[in-house]
Amino acid sequence: MSLSRHVAVLVGSLRKESVNRKLALALEKLAPASLRLEIVGIGDLPLYNQDVEDQGAPASWVQFRDRIRAADAVLFITPEYNRSVPGVLKNALDVGSRPYGKSAWNGKPGAVVGTSPGMFGGFGAVHHLRQSLVSLNVPVLQQPEVYLSGADKIFDAYGNIANESTRSFLQEFLHAFEVWIDKTGVRPASPDKAGQELVRA
Amino acid sequence: MSLSRHVAVLVGSLRKESVNRKLALALEKLAPASLRLEIVGIGDLPLYNQDVEDQGAPASWVQFRDRIRAADAVLFITPEYNRSVPGVLKNALDVGSRPYGKSAWNGKPGAVVGTSPGMFGGFGAVHHLRQSLVSLNVPVLQQPEVYLSGADKIFDAYGNIANESTRSFLQEFLHAFEVWIDKTGVRPASPDKAGQELVRA
Repeated sequence: MSLSRHVAVLVGSLRKESVNRKLALALEKLAPASLRLEIVGIGDLPLYNQDVEDQGAPASWVQFRDRIRAADAVLFITPEYNRSVPGVLKNALDVGSRPYGKSAWNGKPGAVVGTSPGMFGGFGAVHHLRQSLVSLNVPVLQQPEVYLSGADKIFDAYGNIANESTRSFLQEFLHAFEVWIDKTGVRPASPDKAGQELVRA
Repeated sequence: MSLSRHVAVLVGSLRKESVNRKLALALEKLAPASLRLEIVGIGDLPLYNQDVEDQGAPASWVQFRDRIRAADAVLFITPEYNRSVPGVLKNALDVGSRPYGKSAWNGKPGAVVGTSPGMFGGFGAVHHLRQSLVSLNVPVLQQPEVYLSGADKIFDAYGNIANESTRSFLQEFLHAFEVWIDKTGVRPASPDKAGQELVRA
């Protein structure tokens, strides 16, 4: 039995009926047993303020950082707000990156999915996010790139991905992400492999 | 007597002792009488969520949008958080841009100042912000570009700009901004000029 990789999923929109949230849930169902996706909420994180940190970080900040630290990897699913990352998602990045020298993101394998109801598939948001992830030392899966245009039309009535080709593309993406986590993450990919290494040593 | 242009100043850091806030206050003092700078707070704006909008926008969102609408221009003074715009400032952009079709930013002349204690002067934040301002239809002053590196060391004990060359550079910037507001804004530059136009008509 291989070890399950735990992926913290951050959703860039707070709307209940957000396609980003729907997509997170659809991917959770599409993912193989070895990849456990779980949404980590970002809607209750107070806006980052170092003065607040210095007086004692709010419980929600501490819990959020702990959940990121506990995960094997992070997956960002984001819409584009005004050609960039939604403030709510950027705030979560900022909160997770502090206090200075104790970033929860450091070295955590990551992947980014952009969505939009229109044509661009969140391109602007994805690449702004990728620029931040460089400085946060999150090794980000390069390919397949995922820009889901027309994202409000990809689900069936049960919240599954309706279209077969979109579904297999997303499965391919999840597989590539799993390989990426094993390559760049800090944990052994499975007890078997870890065991092999012990035998070899 | 010429009409005073009212500039809403958005400060990208919530820290009380933030150099961005200090800079906003210093610029307020440096500005000519014809340019009235006033900080508009962004720290109490709940994270943008369209569901919340649909149930009735919080008073702080409504007041913020009204203050932006009432201003002749907007000045953004921002640090760089993780190579981009702080979440707190991006959230303010997002809040001001909604509801769809009623953006408070539309057509408002703008300028951007980047700061950092280090060498880059907030370059990454400034250009991410400029990308958003394209889609928000804020005509942004191109030059002089302002990237204030070593920004924690530019003030004297009274919060004024200590260095003469930095001070005159910032005065030059404010002058260029004023010219820009008159060129691209919707109000007449002064009663005199407006009067001239009436006489000529």
